[in-house]
Amino acid sequence: MSPAELHADSIVIDGLIIAKWNRELFEDMRKGGLTAANCTVSVWEGFKATVDQIAASQKLIRENSDLVMPVRTTADIRKAKELGKTGILFGFQNAHAFEDQIAYVDVFKQLGVGIVQMCYNTQNLVGTGCYERDGGLSGFGREIVAEMNRVGIMCDLSHVGSKTSEEVILESKKPVCYSHCLPSGLKEHPRNKSDEELKFIADHGGFVGVTMFAPFLAKGIDSTIDDYAEAIEYTMNIVGEDAIGIGTDFTQGHGQDFFEYLTHDKGYARRLTNFGKIINPLGIRTVGEFPNLTETLLKRGHSERVVRKIMGENWVNVLKDVWGE
Amino acid sequence: MSPAELHADSIVIDGLIIAKWNRELFEDMRKGGLTAANCTVSVWEGFKATVDQIAASQKLIRENSDLVMPVRTTADIRKAKELGKTGILFGFQNAHAFEDQIAYVDVFKQLGVGIVQMCYNTQNLVGTGCYERDGGLSGFGREIVAEMNRVGIMCDLSHVGSKTSEEVILESKKPVCYSHCLPSGLKEHPRNKSDEELKFIADHGGFVGVTMFAPFLAKGIDSTIDDYAEAIEYTMNIVGEDAIGIGTDFTQGHGQDFFEYLTHDKGYARRLTNFGKIINPLGIRTVGEFPNLTETLLKRGHSERVVRKIMGENWVNVLKDVWGE
Repeated sequence: MSPAELHADSIVIDGLIIAKWNRELFEDMRKGGLTAANCTVSVWEGFKATVDQIAASQKLIRENSDLVMPVRTTADIRKAKELGKTGILFGFQNAHAFEDQIAYVDVFKQLGVGIVQMCYNTQNLVGTGCYERDGGLSGFGREIVAEMNRVGIMCDLSHVGSKTSEEVILESKKPVCYSHCLPSGLKEHPRNKSDEELKFIADHGGFVGVTMFAPFLAKGIDSTIDDYAEAIEYTMNIVGEDAIGIGTDFTQGHGQDFFEYLTHDKGYARRLTNFGKIINPLGIRTVGEFPNLTETLLKRGHSERVVRKIMGENWVNVLKDVWGE
Repeated sequence: MSPAELHADSIVIDGLIIAKWNRELFEDMRKGGLTAANCTVSVWEGFKATVDQIAASQKLIRENSDLVMPVRTTADIRKAKELGKTGILFGFQNAHAFEDQIAYVDVFKQLGVGIVQMCYNTQNLVGTGCYERDGGLSGFGREIVAEMNRVGIMCDLSHVGSKTSEEVILESKKPVCYSHCLPSGLKEHPRNKSDEELKFIADHGGFVGVTMFAPFLAKGIDSTIDDYAEAIEYTMNIVGEDAIGIGTDFTQGHGQDFFEYLTHDKGYARRLTNFGKIINPLGIRTVGEFPNLTETLLKRGHSERVVRKIMGENWVNVLKDVWGE
């Protein structure tokens, strides 16, 4: 099977996209052969603004149903593959949208949300993000984890602080993930995860999606798709071939204003970090270039079997564990 | 001057009342000779519910303007004394009502809020309360303290965790307070403050109001007004005669449902504590019995000068420092 044929035949999952939602992106997803993606619909927004964003996204999906379809189960992902569409799975990068209501967890599950990151960079009612001192998972946070377990929403820890992450991993009765992270073994950064952290999540049945966000890669904006593949290999060497997947963190379509929003607490308060210029690795600058990743992994000597796992099969398995369907 | 005459002549401030707001209470406040009180208008409520509560309270004050008047400045407190009315100062027991908007601090100042407790029992966006592990003041919390300093809202730390309290004391450029607390030197309790904590706030220009909430007193519901006076003396011995005042925590008019609300996280989630039966100390069971406290303090040998300070003058001074008027 040629690389292109393998890619076309594989289930391809992107564990994190936070791009500008529009038809151009959906066209690029089809070009890239994406079967499904975890698409961020909440970062700093509260309950109502998040519901509004979900409703707008659902309308956009309806209006582009020749290209995309909603995903609530892994059966939906397989259906998307069969129909040649990209499945859109709603995810949050912050549990802030639950506000102070445990019942909102189930409300959002019913609205199609399948993955929620517990904290985004800073402290919320649940715990603390990776850009400030982290006091760990709160009592309310433990109740939120239990409710996410009950309704079937996956706990994501990518932007979560080290202590809160460890405690969510121990607290959750379902597998949790770093949906989009890089190893600090290749570059020290508050957002990157140590070998010990990667091993800890894998040892507890968790999952790691590897990102290619340039500021967290050793070579920054000079990185290539081979640097991304190296990071995947480094991570897989720690977590094993069944607990690894892709989580690109594609932001395409957004301008500087959006990054200003992301890099300030609550979207407007103090500055937390400054990414500088963001250019994705050469060879995978856009979602449409996704097939190059399959080709690169094959070239670097990985078997078809392993490439299929990395590109999406592992994600489907772990999502089925959490969602139950 | 007889005890009754001294009480009638003094400025009498209650640093914390969370009673049922109605005309009966206002009548009891007049009977008790209260010049002003910090009246709780937010505990677990978010922004909108708190605004609604303030609007309802303002209407109630208008409708009972023969008994009460709003207080926004210490000049208003002196005016209330002159007019023989009780000044109602709005306070929060939780910064939760600020939600994620620093700008809401000033909004609430304009609505008449003069004191805000940073956390109520558990973790919020600012820090952590005294009924769970406390990771300290968050980065957002530091921004909230700065804004409270700027607009002139006093930081209250009574239900706040030890670490967050210490960091607020160090962070604030204006005096902060425990508006209603008891010394753990007389009884160990998560809500009570150690000698070191009392000394620390006083050494940093802060203020302590002493409560008489039975579950935190050594003799519980068998306490008398003398036990309350003993706790005031114990505290004054540490913080000095200029940094001490009253903060009763009167809850009169509320039923068991209200205590259930207070003792569950967010008002409905996990149980944090169970007070059991609540009976105020004999001799000061109701707001109307406030004159007994002046009499008791005099009987125990305190001078008129010191009794006036404890009963309200100190509160006026520290509020003037924070409010600037």
